[in-house]
Amino acid sequence: MTPPIEYEDATAEVRAIYDDIRATRGTDYINNVWKCFAHNPKLLRRTWESVKEVMGPGTLDPVVKEMIYLAVSISNNCGYCIASHSAGAQKAGMTDEMFGEVMDIVGMANENNKLVAGYRVPIDDVYLKVRGAD
Amino acid sequence: MTPPIEYEDATAEVRAIYDDIRATRGTDYINNVWKCFAHNPKLLRRTWESVKEVMGPGTLDPVVKEMIYLAVSISNNCGYCIASHSAGAQKAGMTDEMFGEVMDIVGMANENNKLVAGYRVPIDDVYLKVRGAD
Amino acid sequence: MTPPIEYEDATAEVRAIYDDIRATRGTDYINNVWKCFAHNPKLLRRTWESVKEVMGPGTLDPVVKEMIYLAVSISNNCGYCIASHSAGAQKAGMTDEMFGEVMDIVGMANENNKLVAGYRVPIDDVYLKVRGAD
Amino acid sequence: MTPPIEYEDATAEVRAIYDDIRATRGTDYINNVWKCFAHNPKLLRRTWESVKEVMGPGTLDPVVKEMIYLAVSISNNCGYCIASHSAGAQKAGMTDEMFGEVMDIVGMANENNKLVAGYRVPIDDVYLKVRGAD
Amino acid sequence: MTPPIEYEDATAEVRAIYDDIRATRGTDYINNVWKCFAHNPKLLRRTWESVKEVMGPGTLDPVVKEMIYLAVSISNNCGYCIASHSAGAQKAGMTDEMFGEVMDIVGMANENNKLVAGYRVPIDDVYLKVRGAD
Amino acid sequence: MTPPIEYEDATAEVRAIYDDIRATRGTDYINNVWKCFAHNPKLLRRTWESVKEVMGPGTLDPVVKEMIYLAVSISNNCGYCIASHSAGAQKAGMTDEMFGEVMDIVGMANENNKLVAGYRVPIDDVYLKVRGAD
Repeated sequence: MTPPIEYEDATAEVRAIYDDIRATRGTDYINNVWKCFAHNPKLLRRTWESVKEVMGPGTLDPVVKEMIYLAVSISNNCGYCIASHSAGAQKAGMTDEMFGEVMDIVGMANENNKLVAGYRVPIDDVYLKVRGAD
Repeated sequence: MTPPIEYEDATAEVRAIYDDIRATRGTDYINNVWKCFAHNPKLLRRTWESVKEVMGPGTLDPVVKEMIYLAVSISNNCGYCIASHSAGAQKAGMTDEMFGEVMDIVGMANENNKLVAGYRVPIDDVYLKVRGAD
Repeated sequence: MTPPIEYEDATAEVRAIYDDIRATRGTDYINNVWKCFAHNPKLLRRTWESVKEVMGPGTLDPVVKEMIYLAVSISNNCGYCIASHSAGAQKAGMTDEMFGEVMDIVGMANENNKLVAGYRVPIDDVYLKVRGAD
Repeated sequence: MTPPIEYEDATAEVRAIYDDIRATRGTDYINNVWKCFAHNPKLLRRTWESVKEVMGPGTLDPVVKEMIYLAVSISNNCGYCIASHSAGAQKAGMTDEMFGEVMDIVGMANENNKLVAGYRVPIDDVYLKVRGAD
Repeated sequence: MTPPIEYEDATAEVRAIYDDIRATRGTDYINNVWKCFAHNPKLLRRTWESVKEVMGPGTLDPVVKEMIYLAVSISNNCGYCIASHSAGAQKAGMTDEMFGEVMDIVGMANENNKLVAGYRVPIDDVYLKVRGAD
Repeated sequence: MTPPIEYEDATAEVRAIYDDIRATRGTDYINNVWKCFAHNPKLLRRTWESVKEVMGPGTLDPVVKEMIYLAVSISNNCGYCIASHSAGAQKAGMTDEMFGEVMDIVGMANENNKLVAGYRVPIDDVYLKVRGAD
């Protein structure tokens, strides 16, 4: 395990980021992921800046963003991320029923992703014309 | 590649499912995944029944469901599923901007899922009390 | 962790599925996976119906089915599934020697799957003619 | 793509392995994976020796070994391996019906592996006593 | 496929990043990954800034950085990344022999990662005292 | 969990391999992975012979080999392997700063591997001419 670096043991550079996390989230609590990344201040800064930009206000609703993050973390079997983003999604408004539907989809997508691989399904011509990015 | 089974070559059992796919989706077009699964009629039926139940009306908006499905398929690197569910999500209302945000999250979650593994981040006590299912 | 729902706390809908699990398996013991899925009764029902159909009598021997399930679970690094299906496979007749051979194959397949990716091996023409499904 | 090294262009060290592959398999055909690994003769030798030991005679039936290999390759989404081991399994006696059951299991295991992760199912005490290896 | 956005069709914001890529790399050639990310200018900028910081001068030799990137991409079976970082690593000095050793390790690590999962190997006490980050 | 087989309980065949591990590594300590693989002596021997060949002297520096092994293990989320190869890499000379850079790359590669999949980036013609193996 990486020992989390507490605020009082942190460098000024790390404290400034901890302060920003607290201010942005409106809570004094800083979870362990940041306290572990603090062993690598550049990575801490880069990751936190990305999280602020990506999970901050945008077109998608915050709870939708959290559910997508959670769905990916479940597919990747990341225990910490499943725990923290289950909490995050609930805080953002995910009800038990919504979580149940996320799980329905995650389970089915994982099944079908592999069935498609095993059956080597040829891509339909109509999908080749669909652009992914615009 | 598995050769897709066309309607005219399908058994009565398979045709009935093709008919239901067409009726449910309001289009005559049946994409290759079903035509390949048709080599295994029980799997075709089971999978289609699940898709109808899971992707049908519920608490989450259809476009949210499609985006979660797409996010998982991208994490699993399933070329066919990325193509078909990019199309499905767009049809359900995903704009370019929304897709961009899905990608932002998928990318970041995949990065952080692995950073957490590498740093062996201990789970915060507060997350242990969060239930995943209710 | 999701708190397992015990029989006495379950709804009638869930109890009926628990009863079917017990009857089908010939044991009163219900393992935690079902008791956790019970938070989402539709998923519980759908998953149980699939398990009954897929793992029930068919062409492949039950122990072969369990070993394939176990091999996939090991490749996916699912701790719970490895534990439960190691038990399941043993119960179905997997000896230590058979488990050893499963591990031999799982290890080697995982190695070769990645070697092939890294060397970008072109698919032999003879394999393109092989159908996957029939 | 890595250019396959043909027999006539191979070193004596590589030719000796090609000869052994041909003799062991009873066919002159050498598939591309070996011809690509031939760029790294030590890896070619090590991998071929492992394949001979692991996929050779043992407790499990050859077709069972091939189906387990195939199931892992599908879960890992390795296009080349899916193609070559679909062919290998068919040659070893896998019928369409058997392949269908392999797919049933691969799909379901992949679904359940992720459902278990998302629901964070606690491992049953009874499974902790099961040894994986003996 | 996402259509790459060429320089002449790009916005001023995207052109500025293209210019920086060209200047940093000392070549006019911009590979498709950037031209596709350009559909999402924030992601393009964020990703490029990260690449500059992470792959730029540091403690590890550039060829070591490229080989690590390549090893991860092979494990993730990312065709594009394997192709582009094989080229990148070669440009940074990776010889055929070095690539061969990267493949040796990638193959073996993938095998052993799964063997450890299947055998459910208990972590040695001595490893629990090793910190991952400092 | 698989119970590790201690030296005094091992067969002569296994003891000989334990002896070789001790002699090769210059330490009496044998970590659990070998003691668990010992339930399958052929696999123990095959895996140990591969490790000796792959991780032994070669073109790449031992610490580079360990960091590549670690990077793959992190991407595969193998807890045991992350712990043991963090220790191994540190013993081979990986400093905190070097570990930080490994993590930077592992995180970024995992992000970009998935962004490329989601954007379905077409492979540049220039990469098709790059050979992977020589």
